Amino acid sequence: MITATILSIGTELLFGQTVNTNAAEVSLELQALGIGVLYHHTVGDNPGRMREVLELSLKESDIVITTGGLGPTQDDITKELIAEVMGVGTEFNEEALTRMTEMFQRLGRKNFTENNKKQAYLPVGSTVFQNDEGTAPGFALRGSTGSDFRGKVAIALPGPPREMRAMLKKDVIPYLAGLSDAALYQKNLRFYGVGESALETLLLPLIDGQTDPTIATYAKDGECIVRIASMRGTEAEAEAAVLEAVLKVKAIAGKYLYSSEGEELSEVVVRKLREKGLVLAAAESCTGGLFAKNVTDISGASAVFDRGFVTYSNEAKTELLGVPEAVIEEFGAVSRETAELMSEGALQNSAADIAIAVTGIAGPEGGTEEKPVGLCYISVSRNDEASKTILTESIKKTIIQRSRSYIRSIAVLEMFNQLLIAISEK
Amino acid sequence: MITATILSIGTELLFGQTVNTNAAEVSLELQALGIGVLYHHTVGDNPGRMREVLELSLKESDIVITTGGLGPTQDDITKELIAEVMGVGTEFNEEALTRMTEMFQRLGRKNFTENNKKQAYLPVGSTVFQNDEGTAPGFALRGSTGSDFRGKVAIALPGPPREMRAMLKKDVIPYLAGLSDAALYQKNLRFYGVGESALETLLLPLIDGQTDPTIATYAKDGECIVRIASMRGTEAEAEAAVLEAVLKVKAIAGKYLYSSEGEELSEVVVRKLREKGLVLAAAESCTGGLFAKNVTDISGASAVFDRGFVTYSNEAKTELLGVPEAVIEEFGAVSRETAELMSEGALQNSAADIAIAVTGIAGPEGGTEEKPVGLCYISVSRNDEASKTILTESIKKTIIQRSRSYIRSIAVLEMFNQLLIAISEK
Repeated sequence: MITATILSIGTELLFGQTVNTNAAEVSLELQALGIGVLYHHTVGDNPGRMREVLELSLKESDIVITTGGLGPTQDDITKELIAEVMGVGTEFNEEALTRMTEMFQRLGRKNFTENNKKQAYLPVGSTVFQNDEGTAPGFALRGSTGSDFRGKVAIALPGPPREMRAMLKKDVIPYLAGLSDAALYQKNLRFYGVGESALETLLLPLIDGQTDPTIATYAKDGECIVRIASMRGTEAEAEAAVLEAVLKVKAIAGKYLYSSEGEELSEVVVRKLREKGLVLAAAESCTGGLFAKNVTDISGASAVFDRGFVTYSNEAKTELLGVPEAVIEEFGAVSRETAELMSEGALQNSAADIAIAVTGIAGPEGGTEEKPVGLCYISVSRNDEASKTILTESIKKTIIQRSRSYIRSIAVLEMFNQLLIAISEK
Repeated sequence: MITATILSIGTELLFGQTVNTNAAEVSLELQALGIGVLYHHTVGDNPGRMREVLELSLKESDIVITTGGLGPTQDDITKELIAEVMGVGTEFNEEALTRMTEMFQRLGRKNFTENNKKQAYLPVGSTVFQNDEGTAPGFALRGSTGSDFRGKVAIALPGPPREMRAMLKKDVIPYLAGLSDAALYQKNLRFYGVGESALETLLLPLIDGQTDPTIATYAKDGECIVRIASMRGTEAEAEAAVLEAVLKVKAIAGKYLYSSEGEELSEVVVRKLREKGLVLAAAESCTGGLFAKNVTDISGASAVFDRGFVTYSNEAKTELLGVPEAVIEEFGAVSRETAELMSEGALQNSAADIAIAVTGIAGPEGGTEEKPVGLCYISVSRNDEASKTILTESIKKTIIQRSRSYIRSIAVLEMFNQLLIAISEK
């Protein structure tokens, strides 16, 4: 088995100011490629300690992947250290400089300093990975015959997670797949409405004693992901093996499955709205715009999203959505009655075919014994063409009392789930 | 300076299924105690590699804190390894067993097996930390005179974050405070409108040759953080040293500084709105609710946030905000004219004292040569009590063409910046 070590560089990690998500993200991808991860190490910007850990890692693993320390400042020495340890120099990379200056120009930033140029020097003989999300390029360097680490591979990636992630998917996975003579095929199945341990228990007959394809479950706030991966002689063989496993998983847990293509729940909803030619509006209280934000995260959402009402105050619910003051007074802003009038008001005050509303208590303040933090009402209204009336259906959901942001994100996930149910019925 | 290494044990970490939050949490507490963290290491349940990393860590640091591997199964060997490496045996701890059986009874769990008893064996001579949130006790063990690691301290904590956190606060911090003789004081200064390398260049005279206080810059999307930390004999001395450095940083880069207390830009804006008794409304096009989401992320935002209009379609801009169709037709939905009418419309159609609007092109589709992806207009309107009119000011901003989510988040950051400028003037 090919082995790897992940070496994260950054004083902010050692200080505990930043949680190291990069190591987990890289590990997940390495796992899927059949590469065994032996260690994660984190060091600060200390050259002596960085060097020691880098050499140890190259000694013990076939591949070392570093994240961080590629920036323009004096502390950023990852590149220089890798070159030194692997016994090569650095050379100026014209394309990297061009891309960097383009990015600065596009931004209209004039302060392109000399130390930014430092980022365009890369180890001699390395495969350069251009950075689409930032300025620092990454690279892969293979130890040459004369090197202490002959045949070993060092891969350097930027530290900011967005930059790291983009480079990992676009460049690093294909590069690593090329090191092995096997082909990888993988699929991510996404589930809603079932916990990870319950799903794992269901799938245990498939997971137990697995070799290839591998089947692994991951929990995500309110959701589960099952990753199925196969490495075979050809991609066609790997694909066939994965698709066979997908069928088995579907047979067991299909009722919780909402995407076999790794789509987010919001993406599935937007795609289905578009397929059915439906236009959506939203009225949000406790989620305060998070639902609309998640819809409009998707490029092209304008085809299906007309408008959103963030009716945070009671006055806004009355003025924008027509929820009578008397209803809010009698039942409260967080009530089934208010939620239903909100979705009906959103439908009537927009050009939408279907409208969703939420009202709840995101906390940490504002909960009562009767209406605790985490309580929310979600309502969906749509025009019924046959009866020329509005159909409204609502649910009450009590979300486990974790953080405010957790409660808000679970409420939004449930909104997408309710929309999916409503669209699928229509 | 007393130094420490954090050693996390768990195959689920190396697989990437679990993000290692323990290392960051422990680090934050060590920092505050003036203990320097040199490394984070993560290993799986492999005895050889665990032993190697444990010995290396004890060699290089004064303190090694492990998390994980204290459970009842055969894989859980942290305790035995520490005892072995430190040259002591293990002994049965009566109190640990009593507490464990009590915990099982409380949970109504009947499956107390023989291997659970394994958790009650602890290294001879260790300080035992009972576990209030789970079954496995932790401990601290100091290397005795005859040991290879004489005077070094190994501390073992459970892996589940809730158990680890409780033991850290209740037992470990008091234990460690007794070891250190220096006090730490630190401040995080937050900057907007200047890049990390430009800021570092400005601060170089302060950063160069720094010993104490230390001054370090960190980049965050569109923002910079400068952390100033000092370790002195007393907290008062450390605080004085940090505050002196803060004044120097302010003298050089004060115009970009928005918080000396580590607050987010959105938190500063919400706090200032509250202080001034101002109510806010927002009208969003390209950011699609992200601005409202960020405002309402803050608990208690209801005191300052009335409503948000997510006017994604042109019809919504006209119907909800009163932007004339003719203006959108002549100048386009993404134009200064539309932005200004949006913020004026939001002010007029709400109970707010100040309203902000944004319209732009988040991409990746929809850009033209004249109006490229990343272009946005931000407008702020407020009631001017003196002249009884609405004052509107707007800016044009071109954001670097990275991902859609990057463009949207930078647009929102700039909205908060424009609000901060407007509130500060008022």
